[in-house]
Amino acid sequence: MDQPILSTLADGRDVRFYALPGHTIRPVPDVRPLPKRADGRRTEIRYDRATGDWVTIAALRQDRTYNPPADRCPLCPSPRGDSSEVPASDYDVVVFENRFPSLSGAGAGAPTAPAGPMKGDLHAPGVGRCEVICFSSDHSISFAELSHDHARLVVDVWRQRTAALLDLDGIEQVFCFENRGEEIGVTLSHPHGQIYGYPFPTPRTAAMLGQAEAFTARAAGRNLFADLLAREIGEQVRIIASNEHFTAFVPFAARWPVEVHIYPNRHVHNLTDLSERELDDLTSMYLDVLGRFDRLYSTPLPYISALHQYRAHGIQEHGYFHIELMSIRRSASKLKYLAGSESAMDAYITDVTPEATAEFLNSVAT
Amino acid sequence: MDQPILSTLADGRDVRFYALPGHTIRPVPDVRPLPKRADGRRTEIRYDRATGDWVTIAALRQDRTYNPPADRCPLCPSPRGDSSEVPASDYDVVVFENRFPSLSGAGAGAPTAPAGPMKGDLHAPGVGRCEVICFSSDHSISFAELSHDHARLVVDVWRQRTAALLDLDGIEQVFCFENRGEEIGVTLSHPHGQIYGYPFPTPRTAAMLGQAEAFTARAAGRNLFADLLAREIGEQVRIIASNEHFTAFVPFAARWPVEVHIYPNRHVHNLTDLSERELDDLTSMYLDVLGRFDRLYSTPLPYISALHQYRAHGIQEHGYFHIELMSIRRSASKLKYLAGSESAMDAYITDVTPEATAEFLNSVAT
Repeated sequence: MDQPILSTLADGRDVRFYALPGHTIRPVPDVRPLPKRADGRRTEIRYDRATGDWVTIAALRQDRTYNPPADRCPLCPSPRGDSSEVPASDYDVVVFENRFPSLSGAGAGAPTAPAGPMKGDLHAPGVGRCEVICFSSDHSISFAELSHDHARLVVDVWRQRTAALLDLDGIEQVFCFENRGEEIGVTLSHPHGQIYGYPFPTPRTAAMLGQAEAFTARAAGRNLFADLLAREIGEQVRIIASNEHFTAFVPFAARWPVEVHIYPNRHVHNLTDLSERELDDLTSMYLDVLGRFDRLYSTPLPYISALHQYRAHGIQEHGYFHIELMSIRRSASKLKYLAGSESAMDAYITDVTPEATAEFLNSVAT
Repeated sequence: MDQPILSTLADGRDVRFYALPGHTIRPVPDVRPLPKRADGRRTEIRYDRATGDWVTIAALRQDRTYNPPADRCPLCPSPRGDSSEVPASDYDVVVFENRFPSLSGAGAGAPTAPAGPMKGDLHAPGVGRCEVICFSSDHSISFAELSHDHARLVVDVWRQRTAALLDLDGIEQVFCFENRGEEIGVTLSHPHGQIYGYPFPTPRTAAMLGQAEAFTARAAGRNLFADLLAREIGEQVRIIASNEHFTAFVPFAARWPVEVHIYPNRHVHNLTDLSERELDDLTSMYLDVLGRFDRLYSTPLPYISALHQYRAHGIQEHGYFHIELMSIRRSASKLKYLAGSESAMDAYITDVTPEATAEFLNSVAT
């Protein structure tokens, strides 16, 4: 992948344009009269002593863009630089800082969250970074419809931004994800995802790393996630796809009506560890899984795609790069809601067996 | 409170009728031709080694009742015993076993979930109990509209069922809760709640007990939740109500746009520990908070109310009975959706400060 063209939006935010081979992108000046940005310290993180989790309080976001009309899409190209977040006549993939960031200000000298909150140390500035990644300039395409080369470009951009954000002071974990579908509150239908740099390990990551560290200690140095993957490959009943370098399966204890995990066949920590051939295999498998999601029902499946990435040292060494995809749709017309058991007690109850979900997903394989 | 009238539904499930003083309830036979019940072993719990959480797989529930028309409400009284789950011409409060239980079969000799799952011990039958509690025979009332005496009867029933379920083999945690509102997937609008007996400590409870145990160890025996309460009372900025025996506040690190915790002013483990006067104070405060919820917007606030209850021994000794209420509504017309950060990483981001939520709730106090 070539280096991106780096430009600046009217309020000072970075924007990076990425092009497919042979395609030249020419940014234009962003001429919108945007108000000056906040100083990156307007949000706050608070430590919940009852659970040990950090919560982000981002009160400024109540004003953010909400379901704009299609002809005012802020993610479509803006050829004259006056109508969207992307000042250019065209692009393949673009990344820019979120105008309403939950976390911001990571960089030289920024602190990460306190490691062991004690009395009087229960909140901190919302340091971090929130980026938006547009997967295509085509407003109505879905990720699953991207060509292999275009999807591979997205994967390469995720990889490059992961490396860049992991290098920023103040960032502990880099999280690339896509929310797709009005059913999960997505207010912009243009195909896009987000990249968050958190100043703390997220609660789910912390829980997983705790499990993995304990497993390694009692299993003579083996890795928990390698063991999980080996078990799925051994049992075969929940596998939905495999190629030389990756395996996709519905996990044994799936929490969602549709849930797929994509694991590399060897233990790596994040996208930057993968070879060219592995990145190609990941791209193929990701398109395969998303294509099945789109074929399950007559309308597009709402989904969340979450890249679990880790550093190679400290407790994060036990982490194993993988992608978790999930959907709240439980039938053609019904959604799973998170009510008392899930929202209040984190005790998930699912209406479908993981084996049946795997069978369903295999019934729409090409 | 008098003892309930115990009866049996057509398929063998228990039903208990509770009456206000001076009110006599006369159950009639349930004459519906219901199919025989499952044997209580049709659901399964699975241990997720990646997170340490149990997940319940209740595949049979896909067929459960979904948005029935109002004249077919299964929770309204059924004077001839042929049209609902409640065979009687009237009732004040009624409790019966869920016809489509996620967990069932608790009782003599039933096993709880394995304490420390290791290889080969990753799933178990879905033992436990799921009860439905109807708060009133009036189809269109809300909890907040109940009289003090009627609401106190509900509290007494919660208390009695908590004691009964804690005594059943196979049950580790008793969870009384109410889901209210179509926005969170409630399919029956009749005012009702649920009582779950789980065979494992729920993940949120386990996390909280872990935090509390660690706090007690490093804070010379003090209780974490007593400390949290004292801090809220000291700071005052998030308190929304207090009486002699209870305090209600928006927590310092609230995860939801509307969130209120109600704590007793002394450390108790569950409803059975409370005195008559404490139960009255709890009832008053609960009605006060729910009344404010109903006054926040022009349409009823969707909410979840969750009773956190504990046993008095083992690690649960560190638990502190309280009620957590939460809503996903973040403005008159907008909901908070749980998307990538919350659903995939458990990292909550909220658009409103807890202090602003407290102010909002105080603006609708009577």
